[in-house]
Amino acid sequence: MNIRHNRFTFVFCLILILIAPIHARADRDPLASWNDGNAKQAIVDFVAAVTDKGGSDYVPPAKRIAVFDNDGTLWSEKPAYFQLLFAIDRVKALAPQHPEWKTQQPFKAVLENDIKALAASGEKGLIQLVMASHAGMTTDEFEQIVADWLATARHPKFKRPYTDLVFQPMLELLSYLRANGFKIFIVSGGGIEFMRPFTEKIYGIPPEQVIGSSIKTKFEMRNGRPVLVREPEIFFIDDKAGKPVGIQKFIGRRPIAAFGNSDGDLQMLQWTTGGKGKRFGLIVHHTDAEREWAYDRKSHVGRLSEALDQAQIEGWLVVDMKKDWKVIYPFEK
Amino acid sequence: MNIRHNRFTFVFCLILILIAPIHARADRDPLASWNDGNAKQAIVDFVAAVTDKGGSDYVPPAKRIAVFDNDGTLWSEKPAYFQLLFAIDRVKALAPQHPEWKTQQPFKAVLENDIKALAASGEKGLIQLVMASHAGMTTDEFEQIVADWLATARHPKFKRPYTDLVFQPMLELLSYLRANGFKIFIVSGGGIEFMRPFTEKIYGIPPEQVIGSSIKTKFEMRNGRPVLVREPEIFFIDDKAGKPVGIQKFIGRRPIAAFGNSDGDLQMLQWTTGGKGKRFGLIVHHTDAEREWAYDRKSHVGRLSEALDQAQIEGWLVVDMKKDWKVIYPFEK
Repeated sequence: MNIRHNRFTFVFCLILILIAPIHARADRDPLASWNDGNAKQAIVDFVAAVTDKGGSDYVPPAKRIAVFDNDGTLWSEKPAYFQLLFAIDRVKALAPQHPEWKTQQPFKAVLENDIKALAASGEKGLIQLVMASHAGMTTDEFEQIVADWLATARHPKFKRPYTDLVFQPMLELLSYLRANGFKIFIVSGGGIEFMRPFTEKIYGIPPEQVIGSSIKTKFEMRNGRPVLVREPEIFFIDDKAGKPVGIQKFIGRRPIAAFGNSDGDLQMLQWTTGGKGKRFGLIVHHTDAEREWAYDRKSHVGRLSEALDQAQIEGWLVVDMKKDWKVIYPFEK
Repeated sequence: MNIRHNRFTFVFCLILILIAPIHARADRDPLASWNDGNAKQAIVDFVAAVTDKGGSDYVPPAKRIAVFDNDGTLWSEKPAYFQLLFAIDRVKALAPQHPEWKTQQPFKAVLENDIKALAASGEKGLIQLVMASHAGMTTDEFEQIVADWLATARHPKFKRPYTDLVFQPMLELLSYLRANGFKIFIVSGGGIEFMRPFTEKIYGIPPEQVIGSSIKTKFEMRNGRPVLVREPEIFFIDDKAGKPVGIQKFIGRRPIAAFGNSDGDLQMLQWTTGGKGKRFGLIVHHTDAEREWAYDRKSHVGRLSEALDQAQIEGWLVVDMKKDWKVIYPFEK
C-alpha cells in the first residue's frame, strides 16, 4: 500500500467523521416550534455570543449555568398548580383513614369540592393540606406515590397526563442550550421531591439539577435499615427572594441565563442578569386563551405584574406564547 | 480509487482511533500511589463490577453517584479543622474593629492564643466564633476572603498552603472514579461556601457538587444591585444524621459509594450501603504518625470509633494510611 495515499485517506476519514454531526445538525431547526421573530432571534444571538470562543462575551462551558422555573414556564399551571391538584387527590385517597376530615377544614372543603371554602382557608389551610399529603412517609414511599399519581391522574381540561402539558418550544430550548454546553437547573417554588420523579424523563434534567421548596426529613434506622422520613415542617421555600438563596445554596455560582413566567421569578431574574458579563433573562407571557390560558396581572396562579414592568426596564425578553410559539404542547405536532 | 480498499482503510482508521485511548491508558496505573493489596484490589473490583455492562452488578453512568467527606478524607484535619484555623485567623484580622473582643470570650481566648480557654467555651463559643468570622458580608465578599486566606495562610506544621495537604491517593481515586463515569459530590460537615472556592481547582469538583453546612443568606437590593447577605444564623448542619438528609436534598438519589474517615460519616455510609444493588463503603483510617497523624477513638478532631466498629459488621473497607498509601501528599512525589 502507498503510505502517502493511505495518510491522505486517513485524514479524509477524519474530516468525514468530524463534519458528519454538523451536517446532520444543520438539517433541522433546533427551535422548530418557535416562529421566526425577535424572541427566537434573541435566544440564538445570546447563545452565539457566549459560545463564540474568540468573542468578548465568551463564557466557558463550566459557567454556562441556566435556571428555569417550572410551573408556567416549562409546563402549564392552570386551573391550579398541578402539585395542589396532587395534594387534593391525595387527601381524597387518604380520607377513609381520616374520618375527622369530614368536619375539619380545609379537608372538608377538599372532600366536598368546595373551592370557595378551600380558598377561604388561606395559606394556613394550604400548608395543612400539603403537610397531610406530603409528610409522614419515607422519601422512597413518597417518590412512588408521586410516580403512581403522574401515571394515572388526568388534567381536568385536557384529559391527559399532567406530564403531557409541557411546552414543546421550551423542550426545544432546553435541548438547544444543552447542545451548546449549558448545564440546566430547575429552580421552582414547587416541591423538590414532587418534581424529581419526572424531570429526568420529561425534561432530561436529572434530580441533582432540581431545586425547589422542601419540608424537613429525618434519618432513622428502621428494623436495621436506614430510611429518611418526611416531617410536617417547612425546611425551605424556594420562591421569590428564596430563589437566589436556593441557587447560591445548591449551585454556588451565579447563572448566566434565567427563564421564568411570574413575579415569583423576579428575584431570580434580577440575581441572574445582575451579574457581570453577558446575561439573559426571559419571561414566558401567557397570552393564548385558545391553546393554553391568557393571564398575567390579575391571576391568582402565576401572577405576572412587577416582573413584567421590570422586564421593560431590565431588557428581559418577554415571550408572547400566542405570537411566538407555533405549537404549545408536544401532542399538537 | 478502489472503493473496497477505501472502505477497508476507513474501518481500519476508525479502529485505530477507537483503541488509541485504551492503549494510552494502559500505560500507567491510575491508582499509582496505592500499594498493591486488599484495599486497592477492593476499589478496582467494585469499579469493574458496576461498569461491566453484561454483569449483574452493572450501574448506568447516571446513577454512579459517589460521595466524599472532606476533612480527614480528602485533606488533613490536624491540629484542628482547617476551617476553624481560618475562623481564628479571621477573628485576629477583625480584632482592631472590635475592641470589646479583648475581654469577651471566646474572642479573648483566640486573641491570646489560649487554646484551653477556647476549648472551655464549648459549642456555644465555637458558634460565636463562626458567626463573627463567616457572617455579615455578601456571598461574593466571603468567597474573596476565603480565596485570599487560602492563598496566604500556611499550615503550622508543614509551613505550606492548606490546599497542599490533600491526599495524593485520594486525588487518584477521584480521577479514577470520574474516568469510570462516576459523578462525585463532597458531603462535608464543613461550610459549603468555605469549600467551594477551592474544590474545583484542587479536586476537580465543581461548586454545584459540593454539599456542606451553611448559615442563612438573605437576598437584598443594594444601590440597585442584587446581593446575598450572609446572616449569623445556622441554616443546615451537614454532619452525622444530617449527611443523608443533605444527600437527599441536594442530589435526590442514593449514592452507590461513600468515602469517609470519622463517626461523622457513619450515617452517610449506612444510607449509601443500605441501598439495593452493589454498594461500596470506605473509611480512611489515620494510622501514620510519621507522615501525617495517627488517631481514631480518642481524638477530638475526626473521632473514629462507632463507624470503625460498624465497618467490621457492614464490610466497609478500612484503608490503613500507613500500609496502603505509598505517599500521603502530592509534594512528597
